[in-house]
Amino acid sequence: MLTYNLDQKNKSLYLQLYEKIKKDILDNKLEAKGKLPSKRKLANHLGIALITVENAYEQLIAEGYIYTIEKKGYYVSSLVEKTFELHKQSNNDMNKILDHEDSSYYDLKSAEVDINLFPFSIWSKLMRQVISEKNKKLLVKTDSFGVFEFRLAIAKHLYSYHGLVVEPNQIIIGAGSEYLYSMIIKLLGFDNIFALENPGYKKISKVYESNNVKTRYIELDSDGIDITKLENINVVHVSPAHQFPTGIVMPIKRKLELLNWANEKENRIIIEDDYDSEFRFKGVILPSIMSIDKNEKVIYLNTFSKTIAPSIRISYMIIPKKYLSEYKNKLGFFSCTVPSFEQYTLARFIDEGYFERHLNKMKTYYRKKIGVFFSLLKESRLNNIAEITYKDSGLHFLLKLDTNINNEIILKKAYDRGVKLNSLEEYDYYDKSNKKDHIFIINFSLISELNFQNVIKIFEDILFETKN
Amino acid sequence: MLTYNLDQKNKSLYLQLYEKIKKDILDNKLEAKGKLPSKRKLANHLGIALITVENAYEQLIAEGYIYTIEKKGYYVSSLVEKTFELHKQSNNDMNKILDHEDSSYYDLKSAEVDINLFPFSIWSKLMRQVISEKNKKLLVKTDSFGVFEFRLAIAKHLYSYHGLVVEPNQIIIGAGSEYLYSMIIKLLGFDNIFALENPGYKKISKVYESNNVKTRYIELDSDGIDITKLENINVVHVSPAHQFPTGIVMPIKRKLELLNWANEKENRIIIEDDYDSEFRFKGVILPSIMSIDKNEKVIYLNTFSKTIAPSIRISYMIIPKKYLSEYKNKLGFFSCTVPSFEQYTLARFIDEGYFERHLNKMKTYYRKKIGVFFSLLKESRLNNIAEITYKDSGLHFLLKLDTNINNEIILKKAYDRGVKLNSLEEYDYYDKSNKKDHIFIINFSLISELNFQNVIKIFEDILFETKN
Repeated sequence: MLTYNLDQKNKSLYLQLYEKIKKDILDNKLEAKGKLPSKRKLANHLGIALITVENAYEQLIAEGYIYTIEKKGYYVSSLVEKTFELHKQSNNDMNKILDHEDSSYYDLKSAEVDINLFPFSIWSKLMRQVISEKNKKLLVKTDSFGVFEFRLAIAKHLYSYHGLVVEPNQIIIGAGSEYLYSMIIKLLGFDNIFALENPGYKKISKVYESNNVKTRYIELDSDGIDITKLENINVVHVSPAHQFPTGIVMPIKRKLELLNWANEKENRIIIEDDYDSEFRFKGVILPSIMSIDKNEKVIYLNTFSKTIAPSIRISYMIIPKKYLSEYKNKLGFFSCTVPSFEQYTLARFIDEGYFERHLNKMKTYYRKKIGVFFSLLKESRLNNIAEITYKDSGLHFLLKLDTNINNEIILKKAYDRGVKLNSLEEYDYYDKSNKKDHIFIINFSLISELNFQNVIKIFEDILFETKN
Repeated sequence: MLTYNLDQKNKSLYLQLYEKIKKDILDNKLEAKGKLPSKRKLANHLGIALITVENAYEQLIAEGYIYTIEKKGYYVSSLVEKTFELHKQSNNDMNKILDHEDSSYYDLKSAEVDINLFPFSIWSKLMRQVISEKNKKLLVKTDSFGVFEFRLAIAKHLYSYHGLVVEPNQIIIGAGSEYLYSMIIKLLGFDNIFALENPGYKKISKVYESNNVKTRYIELDSDGIDITKLENINVVHVSPAHQFPTGIVMPIKRKLELLNWANEKENRIIIEDDYDSEFRFKGVILPSIMSIDKNEKVIYLNTFSKTIAPSIRISYMIIPKKYLSEYKNKLGFFSCTVPSFEQYTLARFIDEGYFERHLNKMKTYYRKKIGVFFSLLKESRLNNIAEITYKDSGLHFLLKLDTNINNEIILKKAYDRGVKLNSLEEYDYYDKSNKKDHIFIINFSLISELNFQNVIKIFEDILFETKN
């Protein structure tokens, strides 16, 4: 029989009883579906009034801890048990994710970066330093735009790495680019039609559409977005440093043409999504559109998902000074979505040179890797039918195959053999008609040299050996 | 004269020179506005070709590190200097914020909580544990809804503290309630009219309006939102546990009426914003509308801004199971906006009982404080003209004064004497006509007993002594 001391002063007996039973249920001392003593028996046993037990049981029923079966009695709910089952299951899922690297498939689809290459020991050292030094300051709510010293660190980095001269007060920190796209829509207005690149990164169009604004997909020519197609458009979203999925690197000429287009009308603006511009493998980083803009026609966006890890959820945007007061008036009430802790840590990571060092290390790593991949392709039987498009930027290239086999069949056979990849045409928003080219997108950030060799073998099998 | 060793292999000379000069500028070894040697002189000095220096200087000009004055020469830009000035300024601002508590004004306006009462030493201990134990796992991207063990911890807490039975997979984590409101709009659709409480918390209406959806302000009676006024409305946003600013605690009868209203039509839904429901100072926590809902008519929202600190930027919502697949299809591509690190830390804080202990400590603290405040008011000269409205919930009360002095004058005089506060009528979205009541909102989370005594003295001065 349940035995409790109900001796707390200033607390009604039923509440004490209710709390003790609740605690025993949560601590698993009372088994799920186990029967509780009848109200009368428990009252007698504890030497308290029947009404006290009744009140406690009622409260427990109301809150779902126990339930009653008519004419049978009171039973402990099984919710807790169920919840722990779920917990175990979730831990299994987590381990699956962590084993990602040595899993049974070859992932050419994921554009995520290999977290094992990130200097986590330095990162955790900086985290500890921030905890010790900032202490309770970490609980102070930051400016709506983000922690100033983080924005300053970004400004300095943009200056030294991208040659971009901006002031920290133009920088707005947000929990991922998706969030910042939404803020740009709120700033520019829901009546705009947002022009997007076609083919393009699908998430961008999904975010715009989920915000209930109109989008228009604009064709690309070999230099990027086709400016002659921007009729009745005032806002255009482009990725000039390295367009996904085509890999086009917008030449300076097109950047200037785009700026000319923007300068023609007061309310035209360019959203420059510079998401993996750091990975430029030839020469110095190319100038962004913002860096050559003289008329405040560019909102610039970048992320740390590719350069640190996607889990960090930190992006930033730079808005022209002329929009600052409007932004503050309209949207300044929004709190910064990134915890100050991550902002301080990343500020330190940048300020102390670790970020640039990591970027350089990763650039060397990717440069070497892609060199190996291209050699492996050349040495393979694919060489005669393969054409690579790669503009020395970013973490994917295009592989065009000269074959009569359907894309769907190639993708299906590759998938059956453990290769996950996409074809270029899957990123086209319309005009599927003239897409007979066999162009595949090869994301090379995650795959190892050995696995890439295996992928080539699988492709050789599909394209040459199997005839069905 | 600048002297550098340009001896890196595999790197062009101009690039090495450009990088070394850039580094000296960033390290402040080359002073802003200082003159650089002429191209010819530097080429001779370093024993390299003129074209090499030209290329390096061009690159530095293009990136804004140096500039040229015709016929005079090359100079170091002053941007870096300027940036450091900004940094110093910002640090001053930060210190001002941190001195908040002993600043020169009495803040009855801010609903923020006193961060000094949060057990930061425990929190930082848990942060360190999470860093050590999770290590690189912290870099793994989490589920779009959030880290499972965090959602499980929330489910258990809701069960034990609020008597709310939900499954972890119904819980969606987001960087603040503002963000989650936007996600609810995206889920339910932009064509809805969102009914909001009037008077109400202004940020809620601002978020809805910034998302370009229609809102309607619904009057409150003494039990909360007036259901008879919900014509042509399908979505209603309420705070039944403790309405801001009226302090109304919605009785169970109105909750059931609201559910009946929702049950009348398939597409009706209630958004239950339970933002400071933990601070219930009498009896047990009242049942939320969600806890008594049988028909999946409630989306429930809560935040850790009041219970931990506003800087933490973690809120969550619970969506009915019937919406789960729609949510995943429509919005599942959105990444979780909260870093996994904070989620693991808070999960541990909840799981190990610290959260509930902190809540209990804060409840005792606030309960005592408000008792003292009410006694102080009673003992003051205000007692004859003051009427307090407080329903034993939440962190503010209403103070109604029987006076002929205009609200504006009272607020102005209070402000001049260092008291920041708002009147109730400032939260009314319309119908300012019959608002002659002198009702003021007293947020008591930040103010100390001593300062509250000073505030009372100031009010006595304004209301009795000064006659102008």
